[in-house]
Amino acid sequence: MKVTVSAPGKVTLFGEHAVVYGKPALVSAIDRRVHVTVEERSDSSIKVSALDLHIPGLILTFKEGSKDLVVETDYNRIAGAMSYVRKAIELASKHIEKRQGVNVTIRSEMPVGAGLGTSAAIAVGTVAAYTRLLGHELKAEEVARLGHATEFEVQGAASPMDTAISTYGGTIYLRPTRPDPYIERLKISFPLPSIIGYTEREARTGELLKRVRELRKAHPAAVDSILSTIHEIVEEARIALVKGDLVSLGVLMNMNHGQLESLGVSSRRLNDMVYSARSAGAIGSKMTGAGGGGCMIALCPNRIEEVSVAIRVVGGSPIQASLSGTGFRLESVEK
Amino acid sequence: MKVTVSAPGKVTLFGEHAVVYGKPALVSAIDRRVHVTVEERSDSSIKVSALDLHIPGLILTFKEGSKDLVVETDYNRIAGAMSYVRKAIELASKHIEKRQGVNVTIRSEMPVGAGLGTSAAIAVGTVAAYTRLLGHELKAEEVARLGHATEFEVQGAASPMDTAISTYGGTIYLRPTRPDPYIERLKISFPLPSIIGYTEREARTGELLKRVRELRKAHPAAVDSILSTIHEIVEEARIALVKGDLVSLGVLMNMNHGQLESLGVSSRRLNDMVYSARSAGAIGSKMTGAGGGGCMIALCPNRIEEVSVAIRVVGGSPIQASLSGTGFRLESVEK
Repeated sequence: MKVTVSAPGKVTLFGEHAVVYGKPALVSAIDRRVHVTVEERSDSSIKVSALDLHIPGLILTFKEGSKDLVVETDYNRIAGAMSYVRKAIELASKHIEKRQGVNVTIRSEMPVGAGLGTSAAIAVGTVAAYTRLLGHELKAEEVARLGHATEFEVQGAASPMDTAISTYGGTIYLRPTRPDPYIERLKISFPLPSIIGYTEREARTGELLKRVRELRKAHPAAVDSILSTIHEIVEEARIALVKGDLVSLGVLMNMNHGQLESLGVSSRRLNDMVYSARSAGAIGSKMTGAGGGGCMIALCPNRIEEVSVAIRVVGGSPIQASLSGTGFRLESVEK
Repeated sequence: MKVTVSAPGKVTLFGEHAVVYGKPALVSAIDRRVHVTVEERSDSSIKVSALDLHIPGLILTFKEGSKDLVVETDYNRIAGAMSYVRKAIELASKHIEKRQGVNVTIRSEMPVGAGLGTSAAIAVGTVAAYTRLLGHELKAEEVARLGHATEFEVQGAASPMDTAISTYGGTIYLRPTRPDPYIERLKISFPLPSIIGYTEREARTGELLKRVRELRKAHPAAVDSILSTIHEIVEEARIALVKGDLVSLGVLMNMNHGQLESLGVSSRRLNDMVYSARSAGAIGSKMTGAGGGGCMIALCPNRIEEVSVAIRVVGGSPIQASLSGTGFRLESVEK
């Protein structure tokens, strides 16, 4: 038997970086998905293959003095994807108290390691597909919990945000309260046609978090004031999202981008994409995620083509992606 | 007899726009000057000629049905410069209770109407040169006051900041308290080598002030938080200026630029110049003044050439200008 489940990626609409300092954020699923296919094997082993992960610069090498095949990419992205699959199967097996050898195939409609939540989508998709193959239809809550546990164990730490948004879809308002975050699912009843622009990352998430931490150490009052501004922007954006006020949403995206620029986490290439998108008619645009390259997002109803071209012109890769996409879903079951 | 006085232009280092809402600002004279030459005439009339005002697109026309020569530029800049000269002479004549026909020649080392305080420099230079020609050596306070009165009467409203900085030179910390602003002259004992990048303005100051006012109306909490952030940045920059901490000053310029981006007053071309300058080694850069085109400033010790080229590459005009320049001064007296 062969089961395919898909799960969506996500973008942070508002509040990245500030969320690290206790401020709320708005996060949205996108209609770009990871497809996880799980197929029974006659033995107990697990074989994972990744297709079309949009990973540039894949290198296969044998380590000197060792028989191990080492897969190298910019950030060990493939190796990363593999470990999410293995861990998801391990935790799901414990949960349903069954184990089965499988072939897992991963296909991604978006770049991996770009801040679009592909690892969460892989975890969620694997949990759902593997358990379904073994005859269990888990509740969404169970999928979300096992997905989060997977990310947590692979990374050593993980917010439940990415796996929650990949499980449930839609758009959430999140406050990083302790021990559990406060998550509110927003009711959004209108389309949010967007373009995600992607460029290679020049800095890793850890370095960007450190950059903000050090800026805050050097200029505490100014940085705390920036974090408060982002907080205000998130609260106003939440209202605009629920009301369907796209114009305000665009203005608030532009404001949020300026704040991230001020924190020093954007990059020349991200800025080029952000401003090009506005010139091409986007009603708002901002970098999304940790920054230092990676992704930007432009809200552009009726200007999808123009904004795509504008992003390409400045050297970025445009990805068409409506916001507030649906959560994980069963795509097919083949006997 | 022929008297020449020069007076410096200025840049807002920190705090533009927020100063309109009662926040402090840091303003610096630059070593780019306006030279005003005043020469006795045998009759009582006043003739003004402007040389090298760096005004693109000068148009001379005769009005239909009239014998008047109309000088047209983008913002009636020349006509503007002329009216400052006439008003300065009128007010100075009243003050010293003498009147004399003169030929006035204006020469500017910087673009007029770009937000570099050329009208204040023209007012200050004319007051000082005209009164000196008639045998009076006014105190700096008198020059500043008559310069401000000139700007006030020509424009209908004027902050005393530009004329004060053109009179005294250096760098000032200003709080727009009422009725009189609090002005503190900072002691700066080290060079601040900078490049000003200039691009045509796409929007007038009035429109930009309106844009911020309307943004604040639509998003009061977020915009007030941005104004507070700028306030914090100004206070930290004041300390960095006095300590000579150029590295912090650069970081704070970048932060201030992000805040202005967030307020929506920068422009694509200004941003191009700001980010290019950083790529070329500037330790900090930001737009300066009202925005919507106009000027940016980059602090770039040891990188003057590189930053100049970077600004030219993105279509801007670089102007080399050290900060904290000297105030108005007598250049020559010819019998």
